Amino acid sequence: MSQAFSATQILGRFVAEARFEALPEALRHEGRRSILNHIGCALGVARDPAVITALEIMRDASGKPRATVLGQHDRLGVMEAAFVNAIASNLLDYDDTHLNTVIHPSAPVAPVALALGEELGASGAEVLHAFLLGGEIACRIGNAVSPGHYARGWHITASCGVFGAAAAAARLMRLSAEETAHALGIAASQSGSIIENLATAAKNIGVGNAARNGILAARFAARGYHAAPLAIEGPLGWARAMGDAPVLPEITEGLGQRWEIARNTYKPYAAGIVFHAVIDACLALREQLGTSVEHIKSVTVAGDALLLARGDRDVRNERDTRVSIHHCAAVALRLGRADVADFEMAAVQDASLAALRAKVVAECDASLPRGAARVTITLADGSTHQHYVQHPRGSAERPLNDAELAAKYRANAALGGTTADVEAQIAALWALDQAASIAPLMALLSSPAHNAAG
Amino acid sequence: MSQAFSATQILGRFVAEARFEALPEALRHEGRRSILNHIGCALGVARDPAVITALEIMRDASGKPRATVLGQHDRLGVMEAAFVNAIASNLLDYDDTHLNTVIHPSAPVAPVALALGEELGASGAEVLHAFLLGGEIACRIGNAVSPGHYARGWHITASCGVFGAAAAAARLMRLSAEETAHALGIAASQSGSIIENLATAAKNIGVGNAARNGILAARFAARGYHAAPLAIEGPLGWARAMGDAPVLPEITEGLGQRWEIARNTYKPYAAGIVFHAVIDACLALREQLGTSVEHIKSVTVAGDALLLARGDRDVRNERDTRVSIHHCAAVALRLGRADVADFEMAAVQDASLAALRAKVVAECDASLPRGAARVTITLADGSTHQHYVQHPRGSAERPLNDAELAAKYRANAALGGTTADVEAQIAALWALDQAASIAPLMALLSSPAHNAAG
Repeated sequence: MSQAFSATQILGRFVAEARFEALPEALRHEGRRSILNHIGCALGVARDPAVITALEIMRDASGKPRATVLGQHDRLGVMEAAFVNAIASNLLDYDDTHLNTVIHPSAPVAPVALALGEELGASGAEVLHAFLLGGEIACRIGNAVSPGHYARGWHITASCGVFGAAAAAARLMRLSAEETAHALGIAASQSGSIIENLATAAKNIGVGNAARNGILAARFAARGYHAAPLAIEGPLGWARAMGDAPVLPEITEGLGQRWEIARNTYKPYAAGIVFHAVIDACLALREQLGTSVEHIKSVTVAGDALLLARGDRDVRNERDTRVSIHHCAAVALRLGRADVADFEMAAVQDASLAALRAKVVAECDASLPRGAARVTITLADGSTHQHYVQHPRGSAERPLNDAELAAKYRANAALGGTTADVEAQIAALWALDQAASIAPLMALLSSPAHNAAG
Repeated sequence: MSQAFSATQILGRFVAEARFEALPEALRHEGRRSILNHIGCALGVARDPAVITALEIMRDASGKPRATVLGQHDRLGVMEAAFVNAIASNLLDYDDTHLNTVIHPSAPVAPVALALGEELGASGAEVLHAFLLGGEIACRIGNAVSPGHYARGWHITASCGVFGAAAAAARLMRLSAEETAHALGIAASQSGSIIENLATAAKNIGVGNAARNGILAARFAARGYHAAPLAIEGPLGWARAMGDAPVLPEITEGLGQRWEIARNTYKPYAAGIVFHAVIDACLALREQLGTSVEHIKSVTVAGDALLLARGDRDVRNERDTRVSIHHCAAVALRLGRADVADFEMAAVQDASLAALRAKVVAECDASLPRGAARVTITLADGSTHQHYVQHPRGSAERPLNDAELAAKYRANAALGGTTADVEAQIAALWALDQAASIAPLMALLSSPAHNAAG
């Protein structure tokens, strides 16, 4: 007869006792892909005012500088560096997605693994392992409360990410199984961030706090602070407070056998993931039409109700572009790409893009599967051309390969323009678990000098 | 026709435009009473290991030392000092209570007003005003979601306190009405802390974060970060996510006319507030019985279902004592008091108290009003003696007077033993709004030297 353990106790033991050597190579590689994609996204926005503001606020409120801020000259305390890096990597929602929960798993977890790993002199394998364990726990807890949790108004990347952050921190700090359970329970008292703020900068703070709070939880647990054993599943616990119909076995069933973090996906386009099929279909049509693409009369984009609800809108600012069917179709057709710069203010104001956006009609076709899009173009000569995409690039069915991820990284690094040695960074990231220390990698990821905005 | 403003916009304008001179003297005095009681509670536990742990963790993670930690030698960054002071003041739940919501309003708000006031060189009146505005907003938002919010599992002191903390910070930082609205909206993305953890140290972190997060919200809002206008009342906003049936007009109706923070109450006894009538009845009987109190055969405590549900329990540790009908009756009858030390481990283990606890029987009498208690003592000679208390000392009907609050402060300060000049502290607190700067007060409240545990 086995004693009944609570969710935090089972997860605590899992995190404390896991062996990196026991992990399949494919899982480790997915972890490397996640971290590489994460860092690239953060480097890409290193000069964004929202990131610079976070950096400046944290610079004034930071403990001893012990951790690198990606693409910045400043070093900050571990909690403060993790806070800023989490914000940066998730700023444009261009980072990774665990599709079942829509958690961006790396944003709250990887900054904790990297910052604490740097402070504690951890090896690349230790950092990668902490990331995989933390990401796994965030996604599993997310599975248990999805979809009701998000629908109720919780920004799941932050609200579940804090558990992953606590787990990653506990692992790197070598907390015992019991201490790790308490860290996870303390994380439950630090979980939050609401969807109503998703389209505002307040979202950033929720994501930054998730990373910061995970470290805080582990530090307090390491010093003897306790949480309730049933912090997650108790009658007045996290799952009941924040979820409408939690399915608690999702948290622990098959732990260490079935890996949720192995299902992580990466975006090829800097737009909302639901628009990726639209972009793919338009890219295919552009290729097919050749120079005739100059003579478009109209574009009809058909998708399911979700696509229409999310994306049939006027484009007034940058934020609109990333969730506009019209803009996504226009940039793909006109520019043959959908990169970060194609969703910035210049693209909002570009007259030719505006003219093309005006030719796009969004149409609901309830028969289409979720995530799919059918694009029909009518040219000036009256001819019509159609393309249908069910699984866009970057989806679980058509994942980006390593070369594509590296290309995305290079593009991001060039956008940020704050670090040199991009190829050395990429090589170090692919070889992460062979590094005896992550210090050389982190040195490559810091900016050699203050940039103008800093 | 008036434009419709959101809750954060209305509150933002209220906070930014409020005039201290317009406040009634009675309200200002209640603010002074709240802050005096708050500081005393924090001083009383300055040597508690939970506080020392928080101090040590924050010492390592602190920005430039600009704010006093109550009863400690260390100065910390503003956010870190507020974090530790919030934890200390609420550690034993011996601080203030807004009875309608059971919010402890001072814990998340006063540390923000004091720490930021110290950093910014604010006057006593500015600090007092910021506290009153912040406390008011925390209680009003709490009213809007009570009682469903707490019943769902939210530790309302932290989850609503963060709004008060943000308001107090915004006021002291002289944010505009619009910036203050954004700070309150950002606070919505930082609200949390679950009841399941209430009986553990994880509770402390939730309260500390509420104070810290309020400052963070104001700092980001001051630097241009925005939140959604409907962060509180929107379809995916705070009130819907965290409340089951919010009554939103409670937040703004009669703002500046009816003051919720004026209804703040202070505990005379270091036990759960629901046990105060039991203690009062036992103290009255002790007085009445004189030396016969040595010959108690049995004690019957009658109360309503809530009292029984909360307090009919074995006493195994300190936490049990504060929520035990048996222990509360025993200390009142045996010692003639119910002070902090009477709920510590020595009292758990004291043989005579244990013997008296064993003679106490708790009995439900559904006819009794909430909060009332009827205590019946049978002596060895067979005589019975009864006392009934409907409104205990410290309730809204029988508030502690200023002299009683000062006596509580002295007792707390003596317990902590970390500061001298207690009378000077009390005098400075009663004269708070006449101080051109709070710096002298804060100097009085710091410990002149490192204590042993520090």
